[in-house]
Amino acid sequence: MLIVMQRQADEAKINKVIDFIKQKGFDAHVSKGEDHTVIGCVGRKVIDKRDIELLEGVEEVIRITSPYKLVSRVFKPEDTVINVNGVKFGGGNIGMIAGPCSVETYEQVDETARKLHDCGVKILRGGAFKPRTSPYAFQGLGEDGLKILRKVADKYNMAVTSEVMEVSQIPMFLQYVDILQVGARNMQNFNLLKSLGEVRKPVMLKRGLSATIEEWLMSAEYIMSGGNRDVILCERGIRTFEHMTRNTLDISAIPVVQKISHLPIIVDPSHATGLRDKVAPMSKAAVAAGCDGLIIEVHNNPDCALCDGAQSLYPDDFAILFKDLKALAEVVKKKF
Amino acid sequence: MLIVMQRQADEAKINKVIDFIKQKGFDAHVSKGEDHTVIGCVGRKVIDKRDIELLEGVEEVIRITSPYKLVSRVFKPEDTVINVNGVKFGGGNIGMIAGPCSVETYEQVDETARKLHDCGVKILRGGAFKPRTSPYAFQGLGEDGLKILRKVADKYNMAVTSEVMEVSQIPMFLQYVDILQVGARNMQNFNLLKSLGEVRKPVMLKRGLSATIEEWLMSAEYIMSGGNRDVILCERGIRTFEHMTRNTLDISAIPVVQKISHLPIIVDPSHATGLRDKVAPMSKAAVAAGCDGLIIEVHNNPDCALCDGAQSLYPDDFAILFKDLKALAEVVKKKF
Amino acid sequence: MLIVMQRQADEAKINKVIDFIKQKGFDAHVSKGEDHTVIGCVGRKVIDKRDIELLEGVEEVIRITSPYKLVSRVFKPEDTVINVNGVKFGGGNIGMIAGPCSVETYEQVDETARKLHDCGVKILRGGAFKPRTSPYAFQGLGEDGLKILRKVADKYNMAVTSEVMEVSQIPMFLQYVDILQVGARNMQNFNLLKSLGEVRKPVMLKRGLSATIEEWLMSAEYIMSGGNRDVILCERGIRTFEHMTRNTLDISAIPVVQKISHLPIIVDPSHATGLRDKVAPMSKAAVAAGCDGLIIEVHNNPDCALCDGAQSLYPDDFAILFKDLKALAEVVKKKF
Amino acid sequence: MLIVMQRQADEAKINKVIDFIKQKGFDAHVSKGEDHTVIGCVGRKVIDKRDIELLEGVEEVIRITSPYKLVSRVFKPEDTVINVNGVKFGGGNIGMIAGPCSVETYEQVDETARKLHDCGVKILRGGAFKPRTSPYAFQGLGEDGLKILRKVADKYNMAVTSEVMEVSQIPMFLQYVDILQVGARNMQNFNLLKSLGEVRKPVMLKRGLSATIEEWLMSAEYIMSGGNRDVILCERGIRTFEHMTRNTLDISAIPVVQKISHLPIIVDPSHATGLRDKVAPMSKAAVAAGCDGLIIEVHNNPDCALCDGAQSLYPDDFAILFKDLKALAEVVKKKF
Repeated sequence: MLIVMQRQADEAKINKVIDFIKQKGFDAHVSKGEDHTVIGCVGRKVIDKRDIELLEGVEEVIRITSPYKLVSRVFKPEDTVINVNGVKFGGGNIGMIAGPCSVETYEQVDETARKLHDCGVKILRGGAFKPRTSPYAFQGLGEDGLKILRKVADKYNMAVTSEVMEVSQIPMFLQYVDILQVGARNMQNFNLLKSLGEVRKPVMLKRGLSATIEEWLMSAEYIMSGGNRDVILCERGIRTFEHMTRNTLDISAIPVVQKISHLPIIVDPSHATGLRDKVAPMSKAAVAAGCDGLIIEVHNNPDCALCDGAQSLYPDDFAILFKDLKALAEVVKKKF
Repeated sequence: MLIVMQRQADEAKINKVIDFIKQKGFDAHVSKGEDHTVIGCVGRKVIDKRDIELLEGVEEVIRITSPYKLVSRVFKPEDTVINVNGVKFGGGNIGMIAGPCSVETYEQVDETARKLHDCGVKILRGGAFKPRTSPYAFQGLGEDGLKILRKVADKYNMAVTSEVMEVSQIPMFLQYVDILQVGARNMQNFNLLKSLGEVRKPVMLKRGLSATIEEWLMSAEYIMSGGNRDVILCERGIRTFEHMTRNTLDISAIPVVQKISHLPIIVDPSHATGLRDKVAPMSKAAVAAGCDGLIIEVHNNPDCALCDGAQSLYPDDFAILFKDLKALAEVVKKKF
Repeated sequence: MLIVMQRQADEAKINKVIDFIKQKGFDAHVSKGEDHTVIGCVGRKVIDKRDIELLEGVEEVIRITSPYKLVSRVFKPEDTVINVNGVKFGGGNIGMIAGPCSVETYEQVDETARKLHDCGVKILRGGAFKPRTSPYAFQGLGEDGLKILRKVADKYNMAVTSEVMEVSQIPMFLQYVDILQVGARNMQNFNLLKSLGEVRKPVMLKRGLSATIEEWLMSAEYIMSGGNRDVILCERGIRTFEHMTRNTLDISAIPVVQKISHLPIIVDPSHATGLRDKVAPMSKAAVAAGCDGLIIEVHNNPDCALCDGAQSLYPDDFAILFKDLKALAEVVKKKF
Repeated sequence: MLIVMQRQADEAKINKVIDFIKQKGFDAHVSKGEDHTVIGCVGRKVIDKRDIELLEGVEEVIRITSPYKLVSRVFKPEDTVINVNGVKFGGGNIGMIAGPCSVETYEQVDETARKLHDCGVKILRGGAFKPRTSPYAFQGLGEDGLKILRKVADKYNMAVTSEVMEVSQIPMFLQYVDILQVGARNMQNFNLLKSLGEVRKPVMLKRGLSATIEEWLMSAEYIMSGGNRDVILCERGIRTFEHMTRNTLDISAIPVVQKISHLPIIVDPSHATGLRDKVAPMSKAAVAAGCDGLIIEVHNNPDCALCDGAQSLYPDDFAILFKDLKALAEVVKKKF
């Protein structure tokens, strides 16, 4: 931590700051510049920088060590590659996940999965427990939904991912799914993150609607610090003043995250935009920007979907899109 | 719901839209204007407006019924007044809640509570389970913290509020606290909200960092639809581009909420600003704008606090502030 | 305009609203639904919808006609294609503009332009008048800068674009540049927009840092309503809470704008991200998402640039990028 | 400037950074911590910190000197008090400015001003040149509007403020107004700011819709660096994701600005909220939080206003509000 003193701060104030941090268990390295005295605060203790900012004569306190460790490229320089059912995320590989927003019936999932399987998709998504803004909206089939997903996935030799909403659901999920998904609203449900740290299956961590990249990586750190190293980050749009799209898909998060972390980052264009005709261009943008995977909503009959049909692709449109995405991937030297 | 057709939409397109909504179980009322045909879509079914927006010839679909019911002033025109230990929130009354950010030791809570009691505060706050961004930060004393809070509160004849983080903790909390607090990060933890709907103690619902007022009221609707009518809304700052304060306290949410809902709205200036010297001005602003209560962090020794000491008031400063707030309340015709 | 009355609004209140809008020169079409009475307000007059919202019994007032006309696809369904020096923007064509952030010396511009010309770039950018946040920073060479740009461009048979900051500068700019650029900070400098409406050269209108897409299109409407139909829209990042990149490049603005407007939309990845290593991925994302052009900062010697060197590409890196972009364009069925 | 090297940066990389900054004309002070080497970069030259961030082995570059000088309390510790027509802004004084959004007719301004004068208001506001989002909306009366304002103001012995939109209008404005207002959209119209630096009348600088406090102060610095020391800052709401109010009034900007700058800060609750019934609570909040002035829209007949009638107060409501504000001011030890 670096403590920048105000231009006019005198010896007495400087010494008071030094005493304060020493008393908290830190060493102080003082260096006097032309305008400002800067005090380096060195040590392993934890301190709230605002406590120092409130001392007299202090202009600013600057944290210089990253708050995350295990997620950082400093800790692990090479890409983490996560392999699920032969599909790889990271290290030059782009993984594709597709399926309906929510599980409605066996037939719906079966028909959707069959068409996806024909396109070469090997990981099926589907919501069984649905976090809905309104208490009066469809809340999902629950465990029955997970059973349908598993049964269909087994039929087509696919893997399954679905959103887990609570600590107590984890054991049940482990029976049915291959990737445990943490929704945007739960990105800082720290109890859930801690419990997922003890799981030995990959976790897909969606970025919170208003989470900074740093907070998102800290949430991944929670999972990793529990011992689970297989975290897939998922960008799904942030909340901004612009309301023409549901959220603003932060495509630049892809190169930013890839520089500071070794974890794979995938993109969910369906939830980010909320409208079917924006899904294809944003999927292409994500691949061109170098993402490590995509999760796309596809429904066998979007017009009758119980949830988010408006953002689901028709299977035929998905087939065309997937072909284009493969061609784009080649240009940026990646492969599905 | 109102469906506005595009200027150039022909009969065929209009009829297709009408067929679509009838098939979904709605009645259609067509009215032709100079530029636009507008179709009123009447009925009790639920439909995703984006499904209609994707039909050909549709310019815009407008929802005209509020998504919330029980929280609305239409449903209940008069103010809900919540009475906890003789302290009232709503209906011209301003309730005061104060205490440390987290429970550290019996002595700390006891000394803080004693001073608050001397000022006339009757509801004590304190965190036992702490949601922390970093897995390496102090996570709270857990149930031991709740025990300390209860013991001290009983000594000074105070009520207690503390944050509950998970469904499974609710029975434990009911033994110790008088108001169950839902933190900003859990505002859309719908399982938790549903479970709190079955509780018969007041719930204080903090606004999520990036939650719109509508989403916040929908979360209150979750609790109320479960049968619990005692919800206190708590504004604690929203995330914006401005980083000079931790968050931007949205003071205008006070009159906005009071117009559309009968629920009391209180303000947490400590978390919103994150800095002690901003707490007094923002508390005053909240009272002047007509808030129904305040929750303020006070610590007997902020410089040694384990958490958020930088935003905690010294007891003496709080005493002065409380006096000023009472004088301001009088001007706006309210009382503590 | 549609006026939705509150559920409990009685006849008297409804009639009062009808009288109000009739008195303002509108016709009223009343339609009674199950829950709400809706009043259609038809006419050509201008009215502030908030005036109606403040009447008793009114729940909401909804504007149903787009505020823009000339920029809309309803007005002109086919793409506007703008041709500058043989480079086309729109209609399946992607135009490339490149050059240094600011004009520093003849040699700098000449060397940069020569290398760009070798890559096939035909439009040169360069700032002569620089809007700088600090009054103490380099403010540009002024007219001398424009002269250098013109001279170099003529040497390599290139066109020129540069930012005009004020009405009084327009005649001078018309002597030197082929596209007049309006900076993000001037997007709502309405006097400037009006004056540019009288010009007969293309205008590139950058999106304001916090401008909604609707406001941006309204600013284009200002220019077009003056008679100038050649407006190129330029997305350059919006301000959000995320500070890891300078701004958040809103890639989804590309398909959104292309649906509602016929004007070409290009992307400036250099200013949006502010860092060189993010320029290539974001340029690729923009092309994959279907943009109609790019404007990229390239400097012959970025390490010595007087302004924004950190976001300027080296000419060699630009050459590689341009090749990749052409390959991506082919996949999405467009061409440079 | 402080340069924090990456944990794993070796001697060679450190030396390369040192060479780089020396070559740019700075001195380097190296200090090695447990984890990181930090290089202090001392000197008076200007450098873009991103140029250093792009060097190998650099983790972060931190600017430690404030970018503003003249606006800072370090430069001038005591409050700047601006006196206009006997009304003081700053130093414990709260100045009141009121009047219609735009000048429509002599009668309208006269009647409004007479009523304001009766309440004790001594500074009249009114727009003559109106920046409107739509080219089809009322654009103001221009110079005729200024003449009306001046004539009426003289009749009631009031001062006048109105918005200047362009450099070329300044000489005309100087004939009629006592305070030159810079609108939110022009906060970074640097040519205008520079020209206002040469004026010898107070300037009221509105905060841009998405301007950080730092950028706002930098714009004030532009004016002050030209020699004009009388700048009044005006907070008028920032753009956020919340759309229930037109903007989010950032009340916490008041104590934040007052800590770092000596300039008076006033609040415009009318434009911030956009709705009449929110103006009173937000005015009260501003005074309670310690603002140095208010600018409030009042119209003799808001229902017929040509512009923003919905946010204008009726003169009678204003009279009541002003009385309450004076009572609140007393509590916070200030006076109108």
